Amino acid sequence: MTQGQHFTRLAGGAAQPAGHASLRRTNLSLVLRHLRDHGSSSRADIAEATGLHRATVSNLMAELLERRLVREVGIEHAGTVGRPRRAVALDGAHVGVLGLEINVDYVAVHGTDLGGRVLVERRVGFDAMGSGTNHSLRELGRVARQAIDELTRAGAGPSGLGPGDLAAAGASGIAAAGGGIRVAGIGVAVPGLVDVGHGVVALAPNLGWRDVSLASRLSVALGDVRAPVTVDNDANLAALAEYTSGVAAGTADMVYLTGEVGVGGGIIVGGRLLRGADGFSGEVGHMPVDPGGSRCGCGRSGCWETKVGLAALVRMATPDQAYGMGTTPVPDPEERVAEIARGLAGGDPLMLAAVAEVGRWLGLGGSILVNLFNPRVIVVGGYFATLARWLLPFAQAELEDLVVAGPAARCRFVASDLGFGAASLGAANVVINQLIDDPTAIGSPPVRLAAPQPTAT
Amino acid sequence: MTQGQHFTRLAGGAAQPAGHASLRRTNLSLVLRHLRDHGSSSRADIAEATGLHRATVSNLMAELLERRLVREVGIEHAGTVGRPRRAVALDGAHVGVLGLEINVDYVAVHGTDLGGRVLVERRVGFDAMGSGTNHSLRELGRVARQAIDELTRAGAGPSGLGPGDLAAAGASGIAAAGGGIRVAGIGVAVPGLVDVGHGVVALAPNLGWRDVSLASRLSVALGDVRAPVTVDNDANLAALAEYTSGVAAGTADMVYLTGEVGVGGGIIVGGRLLRGADGFSGEVGHMPVDPGGSRCGCGRSGCWETKVGLAALVRMATPDQAYGMGTTPVPDPEERVAEIARGLAGGDPLMLAAVAEVGRWLGLGGSILVNLFNPRVIVVGGYFATLARWLLPFAQAELEDLVVAGPAARCRFVASDLGFGAASLGAANVVINQLIDDPTAIGSPPVRLAAPQPTAT
Repeated sequence: MTQGQHFTRLAGGAAQPAGHASLRRTNLSLVLRHLRDHGSSSRADIAEATGLHRATVSNLMAELLERRLVREVGIEHAGTVGRPRRAVALDGAHVGVLGLEINVDYVAVHGTDLGGRVLVERRVGFDAMGSGTNHSLRELGRVARQAIDELTRAGAGPSGLGPGDLAAAGASGIAAAGGGIRVAGIGVAVPGLVDVGHGVVALAPNLGWRDVSLASRLSVALGDVRAPVTVDNDANLAALAEYTSGVAAGTADMVYLTGEVGVGGGIIVGGRLLRGADGFSGEVGHMPVDPGGSRCGCGRSGCWETKVGLAALVRMATPDQAYGMGTTPVPDPEERVAEIARGLAGGDPLMLAAVAEVGRWLGLGGSILVNLFNPRVIVVGGYFATLARWLLPFAQAELEDLVVAGPAARCRFVASDLGFGAASLGAANVVINQLIDDPTAIGSPPVRLAAPQPTAT
Repeated sequence: MTQGQHFTRLAGGAAQPAGHASLRRTNLSLVLRHLRDHGSSSRADIAEATGLHRATVSNLMAELLERRLVREVGIEHAGTVGRPRRAVALDGAHVGVLGLEINVDYVAVHGTDLGGRVLVERRVGFDAMGSGTNHSLRELGRVARQAIDELTRAGAGPSGLGPGDLAAAGASGIAAAGGGIRVAGIGVAVPGLVDVGHGVVALAPNLGWRDVSLASRLSVALGDVRAPVTVDNDANLAALAEYTSGVAAGTADMVYLTGEVGVGGGIIVGGRLLRGADGFSGEVGHMPVDPGGSRCGCGRSGCWETKVGLAALVRMATPDQAYGMGTTPVPDPEERVAEIARGLAGGDPLMLAAVAEVGRWLGLGGSILVNLFNPRVIVVGGYFATLARWLLPFAQAELEDLVVAGPAARCRFVASDLGFGAASLGAANVVINQLIDDPTAIGSPPVRLAAPQPTAT
C-alpha cells in the first residue's frame, strides 16, 4: 500500500489494489452465471454455492442491482425451517444483444435479451459479393439499425414476445411498455479470416474483402448506440450455436462445416471454441488434399474446397453448364442445390455419381479432422445439410476407412437443422457470454439515469 | 437436508451435502496452486488473493498441513506496518512423481518431487519392438521399480540433488536423510492411441501393442507402491513438456511433432493439451496428403508418414539400401540419421535433394496444421530436430506458400532441444498437475502414519 498503486473499492468497503478489479469482475460473473444456471437464489445460497463470503455476495449483489442485471424476487422459504429469505433473479430483459451475419447473398440478424429471449430474427437478401465493401457495410449498418430500433421500442417485460410479435410491433411503430431495451453488445459473423482482437476482417475472399476494420466502421455507422462490436468467423460462430442449441448440442468435441462455395470449419474442443493464435483456426477449405489436383480460387492446387465445395458438385452433377475449375462463384446457389436435390430424388445417375464422389472427398477431409481433433460429431451445414441423405452415407463410409483409430474414435457426420440462422445466433450467444463474463461492461441503462421508470422490476 | 444425502465435513465445521466435496477439492487446489505460483504466503494473503473467506483458508490449510503438502515457514512481515504473520509454503518434497516412456528402442524415466525437482533421469536401451508385450511390460516395471526405490531411499530435504547425485546414492545404496519420498503418481508415455480414461493402449503399431491395459498391469506389477498410473500418448506428453520447458515454452498455441519412423503430434491449444473425445487427437502421421501415394504401414495410402517419416528419408537419401515402401522399420535409426547428417554436412547432392523433398512435405502437412489450429510455433523433435538446419528452411518456405492466411498467421518451425527426455518429463508434469488439481488424492505418507519422523519440516 506504499507503492503508489491505483485503488478501487471492493467488497467490505476496504480500499484494494487495482489488480483486484479483475477479481471483482470474476466474482460478479460468478454470481450472474450462478443465477442464469440455477434460477433465483438467496444471497446465502449463492455464498454457499460459490464459496464467497456472505458479505462479499451482498456487496456484489448491490452492484448487480444497480446495473439492473438482477432483481429482487420477493420471499423464498429456505427448506422447511428457518427465517424466510429474500431471493434475487437474473434480470437480463433490459439488456439487448444483436447477432449479425453478412454472407455472399444475404444479411441475417438475431436480436435477443441477456437471457436469450429471441426478439428479432430475419434474413434479408443482399448481393454482398457484387456490391463492394462500402455498400455492403452500409447495408449491414442499415439492418443493424433497424433491429436496434425494434429492440429499443420493444418491451422489457417478462412475457416472451415471438419474432413475429416484435416485427409487428416494430412495423406499426407501437412502443411496447416496460422502459426499453438498451443494446449492450453486437456480434458480427463474416465468412473469412477475422482478427477477433481488433475486429478486422483480414481476408474474406467470397465477399472481396481484405483488411476491413469492420468493428470500428460499424460502430461509427451506429453512432449513438455505443455498443461494443465483436467480429468473428461465420463457421466459428455457427459452431458455437450448434454447441448451444443444434442437433448435437452439448457435445464437447465437435466440428462444424459450412457447405457453400467455400467450406469453412468451426471447431469445438472440450466445450470451447478453438481460435488459435490469431483467430484463424478452422480453415478447413484449403487443406491440400490432392497436391496434383485442380486449381483453387485461392491460387493453390488441390484444396479440399475444390473437391467438396458447391462449385465442385455443380460441375460434376450438371457438366453441361460450364463453371470453370476451382471454386468460382455459383449463380443462384440455392436454386442449383434444389435442382440437384430434385435430380437425386428422381435417381439421375450422373448426379448420384457426383454426390458419391463429393461424399467420399468429404469423408477423406473428415478423416483428417478426426485424426487431428478426435471429435464425436461433424455437423454439416449449408448444402451439405440439404443433400445430407445422399452425401453423408458415402462420407461416413470413407471416414471410417481412413481414420487411424478406426471404430475406437467413433465419430458421425450429422446434418445441421439450424438453417441460415446458425452464425447470427452464435454471434448473439458470444456477446451474451462476454457480458456475463464481465458485467461491469454493462452500464446502467441511460433511460434509468435520466428518469427512473416505474416498472414492475 | 431432508433428502438423505451423504454428508462430509466442510469449512467452518458445518455438515454439508456431499456435492460440496468437489468445491473443497477445488479450493484446496486453489490454495496449493497459489503457493506454487507465488511462493510462501500468509493465510490472510491467500484469502485476499483467492477471494476465499479467511476461516475457509485456515481450515483448508489445516488439511494441507495434515497431508504434508504445505509447511509453516515462520514469521513474515506484511509490508511496513501491522502484526508479523505466520506464512506457509508448498512442501512437495515428500511427494514423488514418476514419468516413464516406452518407445521403439528404449525406456526412459524421469523422477521428481511435487515441486518438479529432478531426482532420477535416465534412458535404458531396450528393443520394445522385438520383445513382445509381456516382456516389454516387465522391463517397464523393472525400470519403474528401480526408480521408485531410488526415490524412496532419497532424502526429502530442501537441497537440490542432481540426477547424478541420486544415481550415485542409489547405486551405493546410501539412504539419504529426511524420511523418504512416497511416489504419489506415475505417468507413462506410449507411442500410440491411448484411452487415457482407462489407461489402455488401444493401438501402438510400432510396439506391436493392441488393447493393452497398461495402467492396471503396471499397477499390479508395482504391487505395494499403490500410486495411480496415468497413460498418455508420447507426442501429447512431449508437447506438454515443450509447453512447460522447451524452446517455445509458454507459447499458448503450439504443435509438437515427433520425428521418428512414425510421426505423432501433440497439440497445445490456448495453453491446454488438445485431447479430443477419446484422447486420440493429434494423429498427424496418417493424414491422407497424397491419395495416389505409396502404401503406409497402416494399410492406407499417401499418409503424411510415408512422406516425412524416417523411412521415407532413408529410402530417398540412401536408395542403395532397400527399405521397401511405406513406414517399415529402420534398423539402427540413430546411426542412419547420423550418417545422413554427415552426408549433408559434406554436401552429398542425393541427400540434399532427399532432405529438400522431405522438407517440402513437412511444410505441406504443416500447412494443414496451421490452417486448422493457427499455432504460433511447430516444434519438431526426433530426427526432424537432428536435421533441422537442412530440413526446416524447405519446410518453412512450403508452409508459407500454402497457409491460407499467409503471413497473417505467422508460424515458424523450430527444433526441440529437449532430446529423448521430452515425453517422460511431460508424463511427470501431468501427474504433478493432477495432484495439485486434487490434493485429496495424496494421502499422508505411510512413513508418517507409522511413526512421525523428526524432520526439519
